[in-house]
Amino acid sequence: MAYLNENYLKLQAGYLFPEIARRVREFCDANPNAARKLIRCGIGDVTEPLPKAAIEAMKRAVDELGDRETFRGYGPEQGYEFLRSTIAGHDYRDRNIDIADDEIFVSDGSKSDCGFILDILGDQNKIAITDPVYPVYVDTNVMAGHTGPAKKDGGYEGIVYLPCTAENKFVPEPPSEHVDLVYLCFPNNPTGAVASRDQLARWIDYAREHSAILLFHAAYEAYISDVEIPHSIFEIPGARECAIEFRSFSKNGGFTGVRCGFTVMSKMLLARTESGKNLPLHPLWHRRWSTKANSVSYPVQRGAEALYSPEGRKQVRELIEHYMDNAKMLRDACAKIGLEVFGGVNAPYIWVKTPNGLTSWQMFDRMLRELNVVITPGAGFGAQGEGYFRISAFNSRANAEEVARRLEKLH
Amino acid sequence: MAYLNENYLKLQAGYLFPEIARRVREFCDANPNAARKLIRCGIGDVTEPLPKAAIEAMKRAVDELGDRETFRGYGPEQGYEFLRSTIAGHDYRDRNIDIADDEIFVSDGSKSDCGFILDILGDQNKIAITDPVYPVYVDTNVMAGHTGPAKKDGGYEGIVYLPCTAENKFVPEPPSEHVDLVYLCFPNNPTGAVASRDQLARWIDYAREHSAILLFHAAYEAYISDVEIPHSIFEIPGARECAIEFRSFSKNGGFTGVRCGFTVMSKMLLARTESGKNLPLHPLWHRRWSTKANSVSYPVQRGAEALYSPEGRKQVRELIEHYMDNAKMLRDACAKIGLEVFGGVNAPYIWVKTPNGLTSWQMFDRMLRELNVVITPGAGFGAQGEGYFRISAFNSRANAEEVARRLEKLH
Repeated sequence: MAYLNENYLKLQAGYLFPEIARRVREFCDANPNAARKLIRCGIGDVTEPLPKAAIEAMKRAVDELGDRETFRGYGPEQGYEFLRSTIAGHDYRDRNIDIADDEIFVSDGSKSDCGFILDILGDQNKIAITDPVYPVYVDTNVMAGHTGPAKKDGGYEGIVYLPCTAENKFVPEPPSEHVDLVYLCFPNNPTGAVASRDQLARWIDYAREHSAILLFHAAYEAYISDVEIPHSIFEIPGARECAIEFRSFSKNGGFTGVRCGFTVMSKMLLARTESGKNLPLHPLWHRRWSTKANSVSYPVQRGAEALYSPEGRKQVRELIEHYMDNAKMLRDACAKIGLEVFGGVNAPYIWVKTPNGLTSWQMFDRMLRELNVVITPGAGFGAQGEGYFRISAFNSRANAEEVARRLEKLH
Repeated sequence: MAYLNENYLKLQAGYLFPEIARRVREFCDANPNAARKLIRCGIGDVTEPLPKAAIEAMKRAVDELGDRETFRGYGPEQGYEFLRSTIAGHDYRDRNIDIADDEIFVSDGSKSDCGFILDILGDQNKIAITDPVYPVYVDTNVMAGHTGPAKKDGGYEGIVYLPCTAENKFVPEPPSEHVDLVYLCFPNNPTGAVASRDQLARWIDYAREHSAILLFHAAYEAYISDVEIPHSIFEIPGARECAIEFRSFSKNGGFTGVRCGFTVMSKMLLARTESGKNLPLHPLWHRRWSTKANSVSYPVQRGAEALYSPEGRKQVRELIEHYMDNAKMLRDACAKIGLEVFGGVNAPYIWVKTPNGLTSWQMFDRMLRELNVVITPGAGFGAQGEGYFRISAFNSRANAEEVARRLEKLH
């Protein structure tokens, strides 16, 4: 009989968000009245309509496909030049970061990219992951057989966990031991923490010393309000030789349902073979896309491009301000009732200590039952997330205000 | 230093179509006059505008995303229910094939799915691949480390090749040896051959006897004109226990640039663990999508759904007729000048024997230089493709007519 990939059997329960969805569904089925008042601050999903610039660009692109003269079939597997050059120009070169157009690889979102990147990396790599963490980094490594079995605390044997705690302000220092790959996400999901230039520079130093690769996930860079905080790992000297960056249009342009993101793969980034040859990863990544995909829907790529137009940028800025005003309101509401609050200043996530020693799933259930508000239990993000919960600021103004009001009842 | 996936280094030269693109670019740069007359019958890419039904549905969906009341963010990772049920209903249950909605998994195309499926299968499987073949099946297995090094004939050690020749009418019988996974593509790319009910039944018998899994790629099923030929492997009794089907909207709805396809994963399909436990693959496939993707762009899913509306079906039918009229014309033109021709009756590909013992790349170069027509050299599809070339019928009527005229000059 054909074999299955047994590594999947090591995975714990459901992936976090489907598990939350299941619990919410159960609650709503049992409590139809409460269900009508339910407000979701769980999954980090945007709520506001797409920027007009993107809408118009996508509709124009769809019309092009309806006309023989302007019809397009297969696009370049790595993304259209018009989008790659727009990204490289605006997000990097305009900020004095040296990134070439063909170092941008367009995808259907950074969630996918975080998994796909393992396609081109060796199975021998020692992997470090922050804790708490976006579950995708861990689970894709489990699936690829890069870990041992699950441990009692929800982690996996074989992964080096980097605790992010209130003590280190949720930004870990490089470990003393050797690792080959490090997943870093700043602004952080779930804690909302950001890494300073100096902190990132220490990671670059570590990566160069250990010939490690930093997998830098910057899906929330648009939410940075502090001018001193880097938006890209490539702002730090030396990053081109040791980092890969993942970005997304989900949270700036509201593309969670439209699906578009990209990877920055520098041509100077090398990795080794078993026999000790050092080779660039760029051709492997290019080949991966040529062989395993046909890039992203043409209208979607036009929509992403439009986010960089003057109107698009203005509309994106308004969206960010909307969500960050929510974040401030929710942060304040939590603080007002005496909860210990982190994040929410340079990120759309507020990371809150549970009161009275409640576990994070107890807090999840309490918020669901008593306030009819869905949050994300910190333990779903890793052992160090226990005792915390995440509130997402992605919501309408009315909902955010209502959640702030309901929070007072927790007092 | 971090390790790379060395299996990528086993891959031969470029993936076929980028390699063709490179040669065409070189020729055009050197011959600007000829470049203006160039007609592409190489890559199987559609040329006709999208069906109106899809255009309208996609624009409506984009508009929904521009309105707070109808905005949608993340969709279900396996695809929206509206599309899964439409597919399962129309393509399967309406044809008396028992497939449930949640056995349909929506993706951005069957090229991706053919690679992704290896995520959930074991590395121990013995793999059989037809020759000639769509290169993606081979290359994704090379990348995943399922083969040895490349052989002199372009194949790879460790793969069982199933020769498709004029003698077996390009439909191979099951091998005498044991294999665990078999890639089958009917109507076939590149040969245009189709498998009869009896031939597929013999494959199902083999799969059941060997507890093997058939990976059945039916991207071209809409081109079947012979009513006796099955459109789906699930028309054959027993397939639910041993087959996975990949389908695409690229070639029926013209979605090569829009990107949508799907997998049919039966809940009755089992695979084994190393210790001999037999488990269903459906939960693994479901988990793969939950963890590694966020499904396909919402407007794209609405576009795909619209292909099943009464207008959509009529418009798709017209597209198919357009391409199949081209196919007939090109087939006849080849036959008229004495070439030996296969395919092109139940498939949009015409498979032609090269004249005078030319190699297939010699024929490619000759067609490019003398006729300014791009075809696909058979050798690019595998060792058994040597001595053949593929003409794609995906073209405008004017281009197909012009290619037919130019072919006479080869006489």
